[in-house]
Amino acid sequence: MTSQYDVAGIGNALVDIIAPADEAFLAQEGLEKGSMVLVDEARAEALYERMGPRVQASGGSAANTMAGLASLGGRGAYMGKVADDDLGGAFAHDIRAIGVRFESLPLERTRAATGRCMINVTPDGHRTMTTFLGASNLLGPDDVDPAVVADSALVFLEGYLFNSDTAREAFRKAAGLAHQAGREVALTLSDTFVVEGHRAELLSFLGEVDVLFANEAELCALFECDFDAAVERLRTQVRAAGITRGANGSVAVTAGEAEAVAAEPVTRVIDTTGAGDQYAAGFLYGRTHGQAPRDCARLGHIAAAEVIAHYGPRPETSLAELARAAGL
Amino acid sequence: MTSQYDVAGIGNALVDIIAPADEAFLAQEGLEKGSMVLVDEARAEALYERMGPRVQASGGSAANTMAGLASLGGRGAYMGKVADDDLGGAFAHDIRAIGVRFESLPLERTRAATGRCMINVTPDGHRTMTTFLGASNLLGPDDVDPAVVADSALVFLEGYLFNSDTAREAFRKAAGLAHQAGREVALTLSDTFVVEGHRAELLSFLGEVDVLFANEAELCALFECDFDAAVERLRTQVRAAGITRGANGSVAVTAGEAEAVAAEPVTRVIDTTGAGDQYAAGFLYGRTHGQAPRDCARLGHIAAAEVIAHYGPRPETSLAELARAAGL
Repeated sequence: MTSQYDVAGIGNALVDIIAPADEAFLAQEGLEKGSMVLVDEARAEALYERMGPRVQASGGSAANTMAGLASLGGRGAYMGKVADDDLGGAFAHDIRAIGVRFESLPLERTRAATGRCMINVTPDGHRTMTTFLGASNLLGPDDVDPAVVADSALVFLEGYLFNSDTAREAFRKAAGLAHQAGREVALTLSDTFVVEGHRAELLSFLGEVDVLFANEAELCALFECDFDAAVERLRTQVRAAGITRGANGSVAVTAGEAEAVAAEPVTRVIDTTGAGDQYAAGFLYGRTHGQAPRDCARLGHIAAAEVIAHYGPRPETSLAELARAAGL
Repeated sequence: MTSQYDVAGIGNALVDIIAPADEAFLAQEGLEKGSMVLVDEARAEALYERMGPRVQASGGSAANTMAGLASLGGRGAYMGKVADDDLGGAFAHDIRAIGVRFESLPLERTRAATGRCMINVTPDGHRTMTTFLGASNLLGPDDVDPAVVADSALVFLEGYLFNSDTAREAFRKAAGLAHQAGREVALTLSDTFVVEGHRAELLSFLGEVDVLFANEAELCALFECDFDAAVERLRTQVRAAGITRGANGSVAVTAGEAEAVAAEPVTRVIDTTGAGDQYAAGFLYGRTHGQAPRDCARLGHIAAAEVIAHYGPRPETSLAELARAAGL
């Protein structure tokens, strides 16, 4: 069955504000190194005022995945909510500039500002994130374009949006439309705090999910058991899954088997932000191009290896060329 | 004579928009690789629409120099014109975040938008710049704060502003105030197109200049003669000068002598943007801290070497530590 798009992604549309910080700054701001916390606009503005000189670039987990997919040569569409303001315009520019369809209607700026993720980078390369979701979290069922979902081989849902009632409705709508059209539904769990906060809804929604992404901690948190038992349980619930284990690679799970796949060698890890997003990009490119689960996972590791070797969550070199060089 | 600030810089307050591009894109847009062209807002918007995914960070030649001065531990103030819009707010945030005083009144956004420099980076690392000056070029005499100039050991003027009639007036005002207060005046020639376009005014203004910065081409263009003759002529006109010669280092010029100073070794040149700005930063830090001309030039080379080893025109590591390690 052909389709205009390989993947239609739905996620929090965010712009990243990245600045250097020292440990004293994190302590003074009450930020725990390596964590991600959600804040309101007032707290976001106050923190921004005190942050160092910043670089601004588009982010957002599923949007980063779409950037990776595009870099692999995949055809993507993205749905996410920005406001009608400068940051929203920048987000739209960037995702369209990489060839991803983005036609979500921006929110009037009087209702909410475009969401942003403030990333404080300590000298050891660790990132501490403070996110103001703003417009992104107001995505609702009306933002799901039925024609785009029906014309995409797979719809990819970002778990972070499970925090939002209207977004969960949008997910149900998108999943229903995808299955009606004979398409697949993929979900990433995104973070353990998402799993802890919405376990029952997630377990129920798993009935709609064909392909699951999670890291080890998120999967164990979901099923509240150890890793091996969680993988066993997962095999009866989804068609395929890519479960990442950091430097230990990942496990490509299908009903038939659970195969450990080694990570790609990386000379120097600069910044692990976006590794999970890019793993999903590689895996989904493979999945929508008829690759075996093991090769989907390998494509995921190739994409993740590119992104952790530099700052920023989106690939800077052509993933298509890296995949070709690896014979995939 | 003590002062609150080491250097008060005056320049075009710009925000950089940086995106990857290929040679075909430059050709299609009629951009000559490595050049800098000035455009109006409509052309800037049209080019922006077609550019790749972008990263946004503060720039501006003299502002980059102030960032280098601050990184060396110097005390700086900056005067430049942004508009009362998002980009203007970002510029102000960044320069204040590095500890540089910035209190210039923003322009009402109905008069002009904040200036921006669109930088297309080709895979070979070369940068092609297209600049919309916007509010930055509307700087005038009223933007020169007499108290700040009088309380700075040196005022540093960015040659790019010689394009603007009101900014040339501002320069004359700042130079007059500085000399009244017994301070020094420094000028950078910025670009050969500035020299070609304003040679007579520049030669006349040289009577007000104590410290000059230029590269070889700019200096030869100014005096319309070969390098050695130009240096000879310069010695009778200014107290000190730092003339950069790319990989060949620089010549530290005083009335008494012209001394060649070698460049610092650099393992890999990533991006030469900002090298001249940072040379000026090191030189001026030395000049305002009683260093000999040769050591001023060495500080300039240390600062320039840091900035050409990575993307972006502002230092990412502490220049003060690099200077200490070099025994300066």
